[in-house]
Amino acid sequence: MPPKQVNIRALARELNLSVSTISKALRDSYEISPATKARVLALAASLQYQPNPYASSLRGKKSRTVGVVVPEVADSFFSLAINGIESVLKAAGYHVLICLTHEQLDNEKGILQEFRNGRVDGVLLSISRETADAGHIRALAEQEVPLVFFDRVLDEVAAAKVVTNDYESGYAATRHLAERGCRDIGFLGISNSLSISNKRMEGYLQALQDLGLPFRESNIVACSNDLLSNYRTITKLLQRRHRPDGLVASVEKLTASTYQACRDLNLRIPDDVKVICFSNLEIAAMLQPSLTTITQPAFEMGKAAAQLLLKAMKGKDVRGGDVVIPSVLEERGSTGALH
Amino acid sequence: MPPKQVNIRALARELNLSVSTISKALRDSYEISPATKARVLALAASLQYQPNPYASSLRGKKSRTVGVVVPEVADSFFSLAINGIESVLKAAGYHVLICLTHEQLDNEKGILQEFRNGRVDGVLLSISRETADAGHIRALAEQEVPLVFFDRVLDEVAAAKVVTNDYESGYAATRHLAERGCRDIGFLGISNSLSISNKRMEGYLQALQDLGLPFRESNIVACSNDLLSNYRTITKLLQRRHRPDGLVASVEKLTASTYQACRDLNLRIPDDVKVICFSNLEIAAMLQPSLTTITQPAFEMGKAAAQLLLKAMKGKDVRGGDVVIPSVLEERGSTGALH
Repeated sequence: MPPKQVNIRALARELNLSVSTISKALRDSYEISPATKARVLALAASLQYQPNPYASSLRGKKSRTVGVVVPEVADSFFSLAINGIESVLKAAGYHVLICLTHEQLDNEKGILQEFRNGRVDGVLLSISRETADAGHIRALAEQEVPLVFFDRVLDEVAAAKVVTNDYESGYAATRHLAERGCRDIGFLGISNSLSISNKRMEGYLQALQDLGLPFRESNIVACSNDLLSNYRTITKLLQRRHRPDGLVASVEKLTASTYQACRDLNLRIPDDVKVICFSNLEIAAMLQPSLTTITQPAFEMGKAAAQLLLKAMKGKDVRGGDVVIPSVLEERGSTGALH
Repeated sequence: MPPKQVNIRALARELNLSVSTISKALRDSYEISPATKARVLALAASLQYQPNPYASSLRGKKSRTVGVVVPEVADSFFSLAINGIESVLKAAGYHVLICLTHEQLDNEKGILQEFRNGRVDGVLLSISRETADAGHIRALAEQEVPLVFFDRVLDEVAAAKVVTNDYESGYAATRHLAERGCRDIGFLGISNSLSISNKRMEGYLQALQDLGLPFRESNIVACSNDLLSNYRTITKLLQRRHRPDGLVASVEKLTASTYQACRDLNLRIPDDVKVICFSNLEIAAMLQPSLTTITQPAFEMGKAAAQLLLKAMKGKDVRGGDVVIPSVLEERGSTGALH
């Protein structure tokens, strides 16, 4: 059985009007009288008529849909940023479709390819950990699909970008540990191709230099997307004879692995190791010990990115209108503050 | 400037073949020789040809896309369930679009309406807190869009459902608190229309009765989606002269409010109040004190729901093939276990 279809033809038949009159009435054309419009709309509503989105798209109309491409949602930053994005786009009458890359470049390519043929009017993108080359992103731009990056950006692509001050935050996190007495500070990073990770690490390196603290290559470890493997990596770092006395964890998901590794090695936070983490975890203050964080303005970043995209979808050139919203260091127990 | 378009006509011109031959070659028709197919596919790849999804859909083809509708992603259950869903659907070659209702019925209606016209081949749905009536969900079924519920279901709709044992878990949580010495157990619930919340509360009520513990209506409070308002509600409950000595928190997001309220009232967990929470927080074991949880099989539920939907999209009738995957009680410090 084919799906029931209430199309413009059916409405025209029912009201004894032409298809063109129905179509114009539905588009609120000035050529049609208010009385006729009212009749058409009333019947359309009672029969649950819906315009066929594919047909309208073929006629060159807009889908009123925005695609949001993020690595994952099991991360407070992205879930909060998405809420910020939706708060703006829903108010502007847009549907929001969220697609996850799971940090894989192939997935990101597949999603953007899907988005290249009129399925969405614009794209908000936070790149995967594997994304180093911009070919698939440029292909989207070539189809003239407006694009705004947020948080994880590719500097080489000419599109608007909404970021936080990752370099300064990496610097501030390291300086905070130094002020708390740390002399041998480790950095828990992720993949090298990610701009945010790079900038946080650059800030860490510059702070070490400015503060006259030693740089040890072995103090920088690269974590992955896997909880258990991260636990092992961090455990290994903390088992070294000259283990770090402070750790900058550059992404939220490293919190659980770091705490668990310290607990299992009988290292007390903050007495033996001080920890600061880039994190938006609502529950950070309730951890044992409470977690000192660099809190990113996730909701605000999502809002700003959506606002830029709205402008771009109206045809404005927003490239170069980059937005930087600063993160905030929240001192808590894991770096020895009295909480 | 219109977007650059590589369509079938352009391929035909380039290869000096008919449009129909190109179309058949792209559809891998037996009418076309392997050599011609190879030429067509090679050119299509080099010119980055993509079939127009709207045009194919109008010809009655499938979008190879599944819509996932959930209340939010700022909740470990949903983010883990989505990962389970994607693990199955990606392997089967489907795109996954995630849409959020933010617990609002109007949003849910709008999303399902969008999904009614060929945009997706199937839908996975976890209803919003406001959803009591099934009209908009039935309308989807009438368009013959396959649907599978997961976690939050409407019993009255004839569709496959993947759930956990909410009734038994509510019962087990309450019995656990009683075994730990609680005599006056409170229940932190959410909206009444949600099946999961109802079933968890029914389990709580039955356990009180079976164990001969007093039932006080004032011990049951309804929380909302707002952190601060939940903090106030829980604070008020714990300020009563006869305050509960144990709390069953029926959703993850109540953890932070409950811990904060206890802290601010100088109530020690678990000495003054014992707490058990329905939660999939990865960090539960690192809280102060570590949190006893009812852990839902989120990833497995997502997988099971996606597998049922794949069957439904192949035309099988999966209604009635409901799946129940049990939750697990994990004892930790907040109910006095030695951790």
